[in-house]
Amino acid sequence: MENYSTSLNGAFHALADPTRRAVIARLGRGPASIKELAEPFGGGLPSFLKHIKVLESSGLIASEKVGRVRTCTLRRENLAAAEKWFDEQRAVWASRYENLDQLLTHLKGENDES
Amino acid sequence: MENYSTSLNGAFHALADPTRRAVIARLGRGPASIKELAEPFGGGLPSFLKHIKVLESSGLIASEKVGRVRTCTLRRENLAAAEKWFDEQRAVWASRYENLDQLLTHLKGENDES
Repeated sequence: MENYSTSLNGAFHALADPTRRAVIARLGRGPASIKELAEPFGGGLPSFLKHIKVLESSGLIASEKVGRVRTCTLRRENLAAAEKWFDEQRAVWASRYENLDQLLTHLKGENDES
Repeated sequence: MENYSTSLNGAFHALADPTRRAVIARLGRGPASIKELAEPFGGGLPSFLKHIKVLESSGLIASEKVGRVRTCTLRRENLAAAEKWFDEQRAVWASRYENLDQLLTHLKGENDES
């Protein structure tokens, strides 16, 4: 569970930046080289590479260098793990409403009997 | 769209911390006072209040002070907005697979004709 929590920290931190979210969105359409990925962003390559590093260490993307070209791919399973956290929250809400439902049914029953 | 992006930055930043995620999870069960929320965490109140401030400015929670008690509530609609980003990514993947499907069908057609 500790690992899940640590990986959520990294994933959400990585997603808290518009450039990094744009890279994730681009990689959803398929693998791409660093050069291709950097193109839409005006800033210099060094600052872009920092974003790639954050994304890689969060586990949301992987990269491989062949010759002179480093290609990035999305690690969907790790993005899905972050999304899972939202599902868990919804389960908490659902169980809360279920309890409220039971309470209301119970109260209604008491009223009907009176 | 700029506002959506800015609010995503804030929401994901807020979620990148285990204490803040635990507060969100607790508030999913219903509103709670700062005192109740702070209880499970060993650290001092000032550092806990910083987390509450981050959560409030991200829009994920709201708080109201009545008398001496400040009560926090979850703003589910803003949590849902962050979750929506994941749905958008999935739509990108789905359209990609659809394109691949069409390509494969097209290639199969060409093969059948040859």
